[in-house]
Amino acid sequence: MTTSATDDLWGEAGPGSRRILEAALTAFAARGYHGASTRDIAAAAGMSPSAVYAHHRTKEDLLYAISLAGHRSALAAVERALAEEVTAVGRLRALVHDYTAWHARHHQLARVVQYELGALAPDHRDEILRLRRRTEEVVLDEIVAGIASGAFRTEDPDGVALAVLSLGVDVSRWYAPGGHHTPVSLGRRYATLVLAMLGTDHRSATAG
Amino acid sequence: MTTSATDDLWGEAGPGSRRILEAALTAFAARGYHGASTRDIAAAAGMSPSAVYAHHRTKEDLLYAISLAGHRSALAAVERALAEEVTAVGRLRALVHDYTAWHARHHQLARVVQYELGALAPDHRDEILRLRRRTEEVVLDEIVAGIASGAFRTEDPDGVALAVLSLGVDVSRWYAPGGHHTPVSLGRRYATLVLAMLGTDHRSATAG
Repeated sequence: MTTSATDDLWGEAGPGSRRILEAALTAFAARGYHGASTRDIAAAAGMSPSAVYAHHRTKEDLLYAISLAGHRSALAAVERALAEEVTAVGRLRALVHDYTAWHARHHQLARVVQYELGALAPDHRDEILRLRRRTEEVVLDEIVAGIASGAFRTEDPDGVALAVLSLGVDVSRWYAPGGHHTPVSLGRRYATLVLAMLGTDHRSATAG
Repeated sequence: MTTSATDDLWGEAGPGSRRILEAALTAFAARGYHGASTRDIAAAAGMSPSAVYAHHRTKEDLLYAISLAGHRSALAAVERALAEEVTAVGRLRALVHDYTAWHARHHQLARVVQYELGALAPDHRDEILRLRRRTEEVVLDEIVAGIASGAFRTEDPDGVALAVLSLGVDVSRWYAPGGHHTPVSLGRRYATLVLAMLGTDHRSATAG
């Protein structure tokens, strides 16, 4: 399971663009997409509005760049988790653990990306929804494979997949660093609960 | 299990106040608390800003009234669910069903109430947090009682309580009427998954 919090969200963006994206993320998280102005974002980035427009022509374009980065990073976390595990139980445990921990570590990013989906332009929203569907498919495929191999037992694989994704995403709503929970403690906890949902008890889950 | 969608959210508020609360809820859901102005809300309610101020002195006061109504209604739904059931399995099934269905039915209200908590004044936030803790206690008490009676088996009652609340609340993020899911289908689905988490399989859950 990957525990690094330093994965690079912004890809090949240069230093100026990164400063703007970070400022936009902070502003959207604090005041919502509609409550944050490009002027606020420029001020927070220590730039003029025209310097911001040189990188991102509209506020929506900033939200799109943030949404794309967030969804790609969450999908990559899931794919990395699976790459290191072989058994059905080990793979699902790693997947739930890392998906949950990702949403705790990136709680501010995840909130913006999830809650402001309605503010994206239609073509941008479609692209983000394709990434979401890909993540959903990865989760469902693991559950279905585990049922086929006899490792899991459930009459509702779609429901379990929905619960895995929903539990992970919702961590970003209430998680605060320095509290009772950590990304790793939440990841372990939800992995154990999901394996129980799949009829795999704690002992066999540990052994698997 | 209660399936009525007509429970009265606004209590003893008069017709003018109701119209303002409904308009504020719609505006907060569409543009976020910071993105919606009192002027927008007055226009949506078909009133002058001064008429709105006569009922609610500030925008924060509107959010507080909406948050109080939402949290009271969700807690009442949970308490009504329990009032009709006797067995541990029956009670938990009804609780999860009705809490989940409440968040589907009142998805717009639940989103505002959950996502804008940070915008409340400290004393208002404290009052809302007390209502949340009361709801959390009701859920945890049911799980602990079911473990004590031998109906449930889990090493992590706090984790299951957290999952019950989180799965319910998160429905409000993605639920849309007219789609694949209904409040009742989601309620049934999550109740079955939670009972599986508690080591109660589908057949005994139905019989219980």
